Amino acid sequence: MNEFINSRFLLRSPKAIELYDRFASALPIVDCHCHLEPEQVASNWVAENIVELWIANDPYKWRAMRINGIEERFITGDAPAREKFRAFAETMPRLVGSPVFHWSALELKRYFGIDTLLNGDTADSIWSECNARIQSGECGAADLLRRTNVETVCTSDNWMTDLQPHCSTQDNSGSFVMLPSLRADAALRVEDSGYASWIQRLGSQANRSIDSLEALEAGLASILDAFDGANCSLSDHSFESVRWVSTSEANAGRAFEKALNGEPLGSDEADGLRCRILAFLAGEYARRDWTMQLHLGALRETSRALMGRVSIPGGVAAVGDSISSAALSTLFDNLERSGGLPRTIVYPLNIGDFEKVASLSGAFVEEGVWGKVQLGPPWWFNDHYDGIAHQLKVFSNYSALGRFVGMVTDTRSPLSMARFEYFRRVFCDLLGDWIDRGVVPNDDALLEQLVEDVCYRNAASIVNNKAKRSGKSKVA
Amino acid sequence: MNEFINSRFLLRSPKAIELYDRFASALPIVDCHCHLEPEQVASNWVAENIVELWIANDPYKWRAMRINGIEERFITGDAPAREKFRAFAETMPRLVGSPVFHWSALELKRYFGIDTLLNGDTADSIWSECNARIQSGECGAADLLRRTNVETVCTSDNWMTDLQPHCSTQDNSGSFVMLPSLRADAALRVEDSGYASWIQRLGSQANRSIDSLEALEAGLASILDAFDGANCSLSDHSFESVRWVSTSEANAGRAFEKALNGEPLGSDEADGLRCRILAFLAGEYARRDWTMQLHLGALRETSRALMGRVSIPGGVAAVGDSISSAALSTLFDNLERSGGLPRTIVYPLNIGDFEKVASLSGAFVEEGVWGKVQLGPPWWFNDHYDGIAHQLKVFSNYSALGRFVGMVTDTRSPLSMARFEYFRRVFCDLLGDWIDRGVVPNDDALLEQLVEDVCYRNAASIVNNKAKRSGKSKVA
Amino acid sequence: MNEFINSRFLLRSPKAIELYDRFASALPIVDCHCHLEPEQVASNWVAENIVELWIANDPYKWRAMRINGIEERFITGDAPAREKFRAFAETMPRLVGSPVFHWSALELKRYFGIDTLLNGDTADSIWSECNARIQSGECGAADLLRRTNVETVCTSDNWMTDLQPHCSTQDNSGSFVMLPSLRADAALRVEDSGYASWIQRLGSQANRSIDSLEALEAGLASILDAFDGANCSLSDHSFESVRWVSTSEANAGRAFEKALNGEPLGSDEADGLRCRILAFLAGEYARRDWTMQLHLGALRETSRALMGRVSIPGGVAAVGDSISSAALSTLFDNLERSGGLPRTIVYPLNIGDFEKVASLSGAFVEEGVWGKVQLGPPWWFNDHYDGIAHQLKVFSNYSALGRFVGMVTDTRSPLSMARFEYFRRVFCDLLGDWIDRGVVPNDDALLEQLVEDVCYRNAASIVNNKAKRSGKSKVA
Repeated sequence: MNEFINSRFLLRSPKAIELYDRFASALPIVDCHCHLEPEQVASNWVAENIVELWIANDPYKWRAMRINGIEERFITGDAPAREKFRAFAETMPRLVGSPVFHWSALELKRYFGIDTLLNGDTADSIWSECNARIQSGECGAADLLRRTNVETVCTSDNWMTDLQPHCSTQDNSGSFVMLPSLRADAALRVEDSGYASWIQRLGSQANRSIDSLEALEAGLASILDAFDGANCSLSDHSFESVRWVSTSEANAGRAFEKALNGEPLGSDEADGLRCRILAFLAGEYARRDWTMQLHLGALRETSRALMGRVSIPGGVAAVGDSISSAALSTLFDNLERSGGLPRTIVYPLNIGDFEKVASLSGAFVEEGVWGKVQLGPPWWFNDHYDGIAHQLKVFSNYSALGRFVGMVTDTRSPLSMARFEYFRRVFCDLLGDWIDRGVVPNDDALLEQLVEDVCYRNAASIVNNKAKRSGKSKVA
Repeated sequence: MNEFINSRFLLRSPKAIELYDRFASALPIVDCHCHLEPEQVASNWVAENIVELWIANDPYKWRAMRINGIEERFITGDAPAREKFRAFAETMPRLVGSPVFHWSALELKRYFGIDTLLNGDTADSIWSECNARIQSGECGAADLLRRTNVETVCTSDNWMTDLQPHCSTQDNSGSFVMLPSLRADAALRVEDSGYASWIQRLGSQANRSIDSLEALEAGLASILDAFDGANCSLSDHSFESVRWVSTSEANAGRAFEKALNGEPLGSDEADGLRCRILAFLAGEYARRDWTMQLHLGALRETSRALMGRVSIPGGVAAVGDSISSAALSTLFDNLERSGGLPRTIVYPLNIGDFEKVASLSGAFVEEGVWGKVQLGPPWWFNDHYDGIAHQLKVFSNYSALGRFVGMVTDTRSPLSMARFEYFRRVFCDLLGDWIDRGVVPNDDALLEQLVEDVCYRNAASIVNNKAKRSGKSKVA
Repeated sequence: MNEFINSRFLLRSPKAIELYDRFASALPIVDCHCHLEPEQVASNWVAENIVELWIANDPYKWRAMRINGIEERFITGDAPAREKFRAFAETMPRLVGSPVFHWSALELKRYFGIDTLLNGDTADSIWSECNARIQSGECGAADLLRRTNVETVCTSDNWMTDLQPHCSTQDNSGSFVMLPSLRADAALRVEDSGYASWIQRLGSQANRSIDSLEALEAGLASILDAFDGANCSLSDHSFESVRWVSTSEANAGRAFEKALNGEPLGSDEADGLRCRILAFLAGEYARRDWTMQLHLGALRETSRALMGRVSIPGGVAAVGDSISSAALSTLFDNLERSGGLPRTIVYPLNIGDFEKVASLSGAFVEEGVWGKVQLGPPWWFNDHYDGIAHQLKVFSNYSALGRFVGMVTDTRSPLSMARFEYFRRVFCDLLGDWIDRGVVPNDDALLEQLVEDVCYRNAASIVNNKAKRSGKSKVA
């Protein structure tokens, strides 16, 4: 067996290899959306072993092991780490063709120098090798980001998050900065039983009493200011489906008071209030020049049996039903006419929705703003090379590829920064294919700009990063 | 940089090149659906400059510029043509991979001999070169059709259209004929506020008073006769969604009278009346051996902000939601049992509906009629080489490829006839791939017939063109 | 013209050819789902001619001929066999790219040694050649299975089916066994006008009076036992859509009694009763270690005109609308919490549902059971090489490919066993492509195991076949 992960990984043509090597491989990384632990990054946390670093925080791997029939105690349960590692190793050969297979091999190669395929036979030696490497240094959370040339990483933080870890990376001393991004969902869960108490906590955080919709808006705005002060320029929302309900200010105010009092809201009442808060937030994002991210169409509640069995939630969701194009358009249209629509990146989980979202990019536009509403990189289940290639084709066919802000990891593990390499290789492979079929000219200037824009510059330009603030940005 | 658009454009294998060169490239063009201005074609209209010919009538380009953040005054507004040209030129490099990019390069090459990539640097010289060419002749609307070997072009005309321009091309003196096709939508907009006055205008046109559903049908039939007399053999309808509602003749009649009186119709009442009129029309099309075209699933109302801003409507629509397979089947079934179902070409805008439509082709059939109900070529947003290749695969997998009537341009610009070359190249490339993987025999007779049928002969056989009427048809 | 179906059929790379030749071609066949006539297989029935063997039982071919405009009397009507053969032969050249084209050519080559393309010119000679071969022997239904190395074939049998033909193949004397599988739909058609009389027949079959839901369950269980005794380990259900309705035992009992009395059921009442019976059956399947197959999303009622015209039903269905991911998850969740969820293979007919189903495989899992709920091979309209390649990619990207149970024929003709070769070639071609792009290591041990598991061993392990029972299983 030859070396598995070699320089031609994912690159099928000489032109693709050339494009990757010349234009893509050395670009810095800007990750606009991930779930790294800010404290771990700031403190350069070092895992105890490869399981803690690579499996204990990875629901993709849990899910794969479950499909393989592995007992839960070897997944999220109390089995020893070494046995968990073996359980995953034995699952690997069943995963040929899966992104988990590709990513795992790529990460073992790039961070641990491992060329051997992980399986039951090699489990023990790779366990030892990885742990030795972890203990010998250069495997702290920040080390790993540095080793993959990360320039900016944006975590996903709720309204109450302490932003000190982020700020600590922004003092010009490190090679990268960590920026917060606001996971704003909690403000919209108006029918949740815990909403009233969440509002109370929000009041404490914002240092004001929140007893009306107006006060809520003031409270939210003050926290947006705090995030903004920590150089946040991104927010994030997740919806299973999209439905716009218009409500008067008075009705929304009454509905909010009912929610505060723990009274149940009717479905229209809840959606109306939610849409009102969302419109307020969208307007505030727009005013601050933030980008809003929408994660749409996940089916998060599936097997109650499994959800009751697992020790840590995760890996139980599925691809949900299609998002309605008409409903999404109505949402954007109303946001545009209410407080304002910020630049928006849409991540649909159902791959059949890509064309809808990409085609809507031509309807929700703004003079002087490129790529105003755009299809995001393939999210979650779609983040594999077929999905990436498909997303790139849809983006180019239905929108304007040169304005795509590119890859994000959405990860909980610092090892996943290798997925930028994965994305860039798929991108360059597609460009190579286009050149080979004669639909793109073999023009260095054109290709270099495109690769740099999609793989780095467009993302860099929407995050408020240190380099940009200090005037030393690599962004033109 | 090598010549961009060369003889291998879109053709990946020697076999594909051979098929295109030997069997496809010289075939005449029959375009069953476009939006050319009949008067411009008949009078061989010459544009003032390349913007008027190539951008001012092209919502695809407007949309691309908007996504690129261009100000509306450089798109549909009052900026000078040269600045509009520059705005599009600067957008081009952002469109790599887009059909607008491919088409633009192909059209600049074929009609203007331009090998240079259009961008900000080349904008001025290409502007001059194109305009010089336009002024030196051979760039009138009819010239351009002749230069691409057009045999028949079918425009999209409403019930009131003057058919004189079409007839003027049918006197055997020119190299091509222009046939009308009936865009019949207005007759079905029974709940529109302007319906009653439209009916009045229809009455004038049909030279009879329309005060009942019966009279409407007589009026519509007389206009169908007039179109038929101008050698029309195609109609066209556009629906956002499909819903069959059965109604008695009496109820439909009452609903029509309400509509005439400007009284509001209930949703079932409106749909029932609409379905009744559609069934009448379908039966009339069938009796006259016309083909009915259905454009399904566009989302035409999107951003009110943008729709309010643009000077000319266009480029604001998006891919709509899925068309229900059950609903479409119910529609065909009821048409079949009412007045009759003509040959029908279905253009779904949501690419996920292709399999549904193609599979329905096996259910709605007629003895002696090949390809009775069929999936049309990829419409609008799907008209790119990935979409064309996908449509061809779906057609072949779920229906009978040899019976596909092939490409249409759906265009407003005579330059778009180059899209037939684009389509034929994608088709030959797919055939080359099939031969290379051994799933189609390398049999000249089989391949020649297939290429000619799909690229020319099937379409020619459904239009009532001059060549056919004079007995000099190239159709076997 | 070279030999059409040659050793490289469907295999684009040297690696793909090597994989197919070394690891796939010689594997025995286990077909978990087909519609062969048990009596014909058991008696080694010999057809009178190639039409009876190859066309008269093949709705795919009828459908293709209808699309081609062939008169029904040459399809399912009373035209002489030779003329029917000619009608299909003349249709073949229209089917380039279609699975019917590929399968037909492959079957003519493998079973009759024919290298010539079937068309109008060759119809007569191929008709004679095939019939001569049929008459000279080795073309009985069982002969044909033996000639393609079938080890196990599972027919689709209703509750009343005589299992004697199956048992007659299980005496260790033949090279293959035929196992029953239970097509359980009739038990769930609670609102059909014939349900009460079906229940009466079921009572006779089960040798007990069925006058309550409890008695129904006992009756169904006794027939499950009989199937189990004939080594059945598979059931099969077909739903157009999926909707879970919870009902109390008492309400379900009352609804059942209404159904017995021929009283109409409300929609919730019917669905509630149906879900209750399905939950009972699922639990019984799980207890017996059976696998449940779900065929979802066919649109079976289409053109009443065509359905009234055909002599034999078949070939009139179409791809139906999407199955809801949420609804499917709710179904599995409730089955899991009721009687139990058996291993389940889901066959969605709408290709856009593949990702949903494959992603649900991570939510409905069982410790010690691999591939508990899985996406089945592409069913019906999707069973072509693009569909197979797509299903394999979706399975690998969203689930764990090594746990896929692989191909089934779903056929009525014994000649269709050649589709296993077709599937295996597509699978090896995909693996070759993966190796060429460097995303799978070129590792013989890994690849051999994967090919054997997916092409044979996984299927073998879920059927209760003779080899396994006698301890001579090729299953590890």
